Amino acid sequence: MKSDIEIAQGANLVHIKEVAAKLNIAEDDLEFYGKYKAKLSDELWDKVKDRPDGKLVLVTAINPTPAGEGKTTTTVGLGQALGKMNIKSVIALREPSLGPCFGIKGGAAGGGNAQVVPMEDLNLHFTGDFHAITSANNLLAAMLDNHIQQGNALNIDTNQVVWKRCVDMNDRVLRNIVVGLGRKADGVVREDHFIITVASEIMAVLCLAENMTDLKERLGRIVIAYTYDGKPVTAKQINAVGAMAALLKDALKPNLIQTLENTPAIIHGGPFANIAHGCNSVRATKTALKLADVVVTEAGFGADLGAEKFLDIKCRMAGLKPDAIVLVATIRALKYNGGVPKTELSKENLQALKSGIVNLEKHIENLQKYGVPVIVSLNRFITDTEAELSFVKEFCESRNCEFSLCEVWEKGGEGGIDLANKVLTTIKTKESNYKPLYDVKLSIKEKIETIAKEIYGAEGVTYDPAAEAAIKSIESLGYKELPVCMAKNQYSLSDDPTKLGRPTGFTINIREVYVSAGAGFVVAITGTIMTMPGLPKIPAAEGIDVDENGRITGLF
Amino acid sequence: MKSDIEIAQGANLVHIKEVAAKLNIAEDDLEFYGKYKAKLSDELWDKVKDRPDGKLVLVTAINPTPAGEGKTTTTVGLGQALGKMNIKSVIALREPSLGPCFGIKGGAAGGGNAQVVPMEDLNLHFTGDFHAITSANNLLAAMLDNHIQQGNALNIDTNQVVWKRCVDMNDRVLRNIVVGLGRKADGVVREDHFIITVASEIMAVLCLAENMTDLKERLGRIVIAYTYDGKPVTAKQINAVGAMAALLKDALKPNLIQTLENTPAIIHGGPFANIAHGCNSVRATKTALKLADVVVTEAGFGADLGAEKFLDIKCRMAGLKPDAIVLVATIRALKYNGGVPKTELSKENLQALKSGIVNLEKHIENLQKYGVPVIVSLNRFITDTEAELSFVKEFCESRNCEFSLCEVWEKGGEGGIDLANKVLTTIKTKESNYKPLYDVKLSIKEKIETIAKEIYGAEGVTYDPAAEAAIKSIESLGYKELPVCMAKNQYSLSDDPTKLGRPTGFTINIREVYVSAGAGFVVAITGTIMTMPGLPKIPAAEGIDVDENGRITGLF
Repeated sequence: MKSDIEIAQGANLVHIKEVAAKLNIAEDDLEFYGKYKAKLSDELWDKVKDRPDGKLVLVTAINPTPAGEGKTTTTVGLGQALGKMNIKSVIALREPSLGPCFGIKGGAAGGGNAQVVPMEDLNLHFTGDFHAITSANNLLAAMLDNHIQQGNALNIDTNQVVWKRCVDMNDRVLRNIVVGLGRKADGVVREDHFIITVASEIMAVLCLAENMTDLKERLGRIVIAYTYDGKPVTAKQINAVGAMAALLKDALKPNLIQTLENTPAIIHGGPFANIAHGCNSVRATKTALKLADVVVTEAGFGADLGAEKFLDIKCRMAGLKPDAIVLVATIRALKYNGGVPKTELSKENLQALKSGIVNLEKHIENLQKYGVPVIVSLNRFITDTEAELSFVKEFCESRNCEFSLCEVWEKGGEGGIDLANKVLTTIKTKESNYKPLYDVKLSIKEKIETIAKEIYGAEGVTYDPAAEAAIKSIESLGYKELPVCMAKNQYSLSDDPTKLGRPTGFTINIREVYVSAGAGFVVAITGTIMTMPGLPKIPAAEGIDVDENGRITGLF
Repeated sequence: MKSDIEIAQGANLVHIKEVAAKLNIAEDDLEFYGKYKAKLSDELWDKVKDRPDGKLVLVTAINPTPAGEGKTTTTVGLGQALGKMNIKSVIALREPSLGPCFGIKGGAAGGGNAQVVPMEDLNLHFTGDFHAITSANNLLAAMLDNHIQQGNALNIDTNQVVWKRCVDMNDRVLRNIVVGLGRKADGVVREDHFIITVASEIMAVLCLAENMTDLKERLGRIVIAYTYDGKPVTAKQINAVGAMAALLKDALKPNLIQTLENTPAIIHGGPFANIAHGCNSVRATKTALKLADVVVTEAGFGADLGAEKFLDIKCRMAGLKPDAIVLVATIRALKYNGGVPKTELSKENLQALKSGIVNLEKHIENLQKYGVPVIVSLNRFITDTEAELSFVKEFCESRNCEFSLCEVWEKGGEGGIDLANKVLTTIKTKESNYKPLYDVKLSIKEKIETIAKEIYGAEGVTYDPAAEAAIKSIESLGYKELPVCMAKNQYSLSDDPTKLGRPTGFTINIREVYVSAGAGFVVAITGTIMTMPGLPKIPAAEGIDVDENGRITGLF
């Protein structure tokens, strides 16, 4: 069997201008990065911005399991299927992070015969967007420490610097460091931390910015430290905004590549799905909606995190109205949720399926609360039995969801025609009455509790003293009416990753709360969130190589 | 008067494919990065590699002074002049570093009417080469610390880790840090240091690599640490080479842009001019020599550092034979070398000129030792008097150097026609008998002493005990026959930056010696060398901005 990279390298790529032509984009509105990548110019947006929007379809999933669900593969495959059916469609995905490619797993380009290409470029430097974010992030950090060094006119408390440096690398020794050692000229000593680039607030800012003006306003609002008397200090106050924006000028433009079947794919932005909102950029989604009749996008992790933030943060802020949601599951993952160990998932087990399908049930209920029609897409595995498939199908249909068997991993777009038809029928026949889950005018605690009870199914919420204090402080500083960005483990609806299925009788504990004022949300953290991964015993990097002809191997 | 960025933004840029066409490069051999930047494909090299070489002209300068010399401006202007004269010519320059653009000064794109463009792109992310180097550098660091964390099978002494992380930013607090704090899972605690990206050995490796195979071999040889029993540990031993090379795949390809007058300019690589050799890439120079009849290149700092390393390291390693050297000076800088303070340089002062011209004299003598014909190019200022100009002209001609008055800053290529003619005449009429200054088979001390005596004019060399010990160790480890890369202040021929003119009766003190085995040289450091700059009281970043149309201001 061919590996993903082998399939990708065997693809019949066409010049990106031909892909763009499918969306009636003229060559002059493209900024090429080689033959197979292009940025969409600012002028293109000006030309299309007054057009009516196409339909917006979100792909999300049940809680992730080691059995695998195939959310990105479904997203890409659905796009390929729509393309095959001559529907004018675009896939809008996130860019993958570089660091993790050298750790355990590769990027997020889909899999099998449903991938976006060139996958090596996408997983490595791509068009440099993340490098620009790293640079802007670290310029802000350098200017902040320079401000302290040069007299600290703003009275910044070096114990309350909240802005962290970043690097797009899995590098655990940078989690906790001390900087500024040496002589007086070598800076002021303080504890510091590096995060991985995708966890930078600038990533979230870039993804939520409507345009350059909005980007600069958001950058300016970023809180980087607090003064000795507890006042927030912003990026604007240290005059870093213009230079950061200059570094981000090109990164703000969406990138166009193609699928294995030459379907257009706009890949732009990649914010962390826990401490940030985990969706591709607003700019990319809005551009896609002007260019195509159907736009397929996805959000990070399962629906309790990704879809919730897509619907409550991204769509609310950007004024987007999703028309349908595809909820991805597999028989294997549902059985895993029903308590079957990973090694036993290939055997038919209707009892486990019945007991695990409650996870799917809860996500369907959740999504229906937003007023958006749901289609369940089951990624078919060779071990799935007819009885199992029928059971899930009936289960979904009894809950007013379309159901589709998806085989895009094996068959590419052809394997997604049924799903595409179900999506098109849903869009045509069911109205979307999208509304966010909560009113932003609620208190921060009320917002957290609404999400915890309505989406996670918790009985209540408890707060660590530090979180209590932070909420008070954040509300008093004027950030009360921001939406809440929940950071929770992705494996369970609860904050305990071992509670599979549809846990009940639990409470959610909030450990830490802080404001991402540039992004425009308050982050509420349950449990421990890792913002700087490490490398494993044998890093994937050891198996990566490139030959004299530039052919890369070992990337997956 | 227009600023450099205003002149650059007013340029009539043509599509980069038209620039490439002047060198008969087909569109298919270009990898576009937008309309005005392209990488030259690997296939292009394969097509042209058997052609005869064009002529190679190095532009260097007297010791830099606050009065300014205009070396890059001369290089670009000479290229523009050759283009105006319909000579098939290429400029081959280094890429500027990003970090310093936010500090005091901008990049290295030339000045006035002799610039390469687009200057904003060149000074910011350009085609991402430096970001790729940063990533490869930091991947190696992460793999090294991960090796230590995962059991340290190679027995690495954490007090003898010599590989440093890097960032392309002026960030003084990262000079001396402690990493790995926190819990056991957060890594092994040790002292660490960040350097600026251009100081990374990977930058030097990339610039000296002939091709991907050579790049990988050099990367593999990089010494990253020593074991508890003093053995070097290389990048190859921690299996980092393939992944680093994959990150550098595109960075290895030279970049093509244009001058204000649409002359082709190949801009590639930018190693530090002190701890590295400070020249653009071998790959770029060799490609340029196959594409053009005359290639104009430059080297960092004054001729005692830049030209020496160009001639003794780059040309020797790459088998290049320079045909002529342009030595840049100004009346103002010569008077400054003669003891005139910066505020008094506008007045005629023949006495000071006579006393300062010994700096020029020494550089002429030095360059003639390499057997390469020298042309002195005087960058004309409005305050220069006829008497002063005549004096310098006669001085040069009496030393068998052509002399030219250069006005490219004001007049562009037109102002460099005389210089271009002198260069062409020199190439035609004077033979280059290039040979390096020393035999690499000499001992490390003999090599250092040859450079110190022959080039700097020192009476001898002293060594700190640490340097003595390092030389012994390096020679015993098998690195004896590498050329020496001297790191010395650029302002004086001596190791004391206050000794202007042509100092005598001094000794050079070597403080530190280490091997850059990947680059292929032994670094000998005099004085203190800063490999991580800081930001000034008011960073240039505070004045940089970008508007809604993507127009950048404040970059210089």
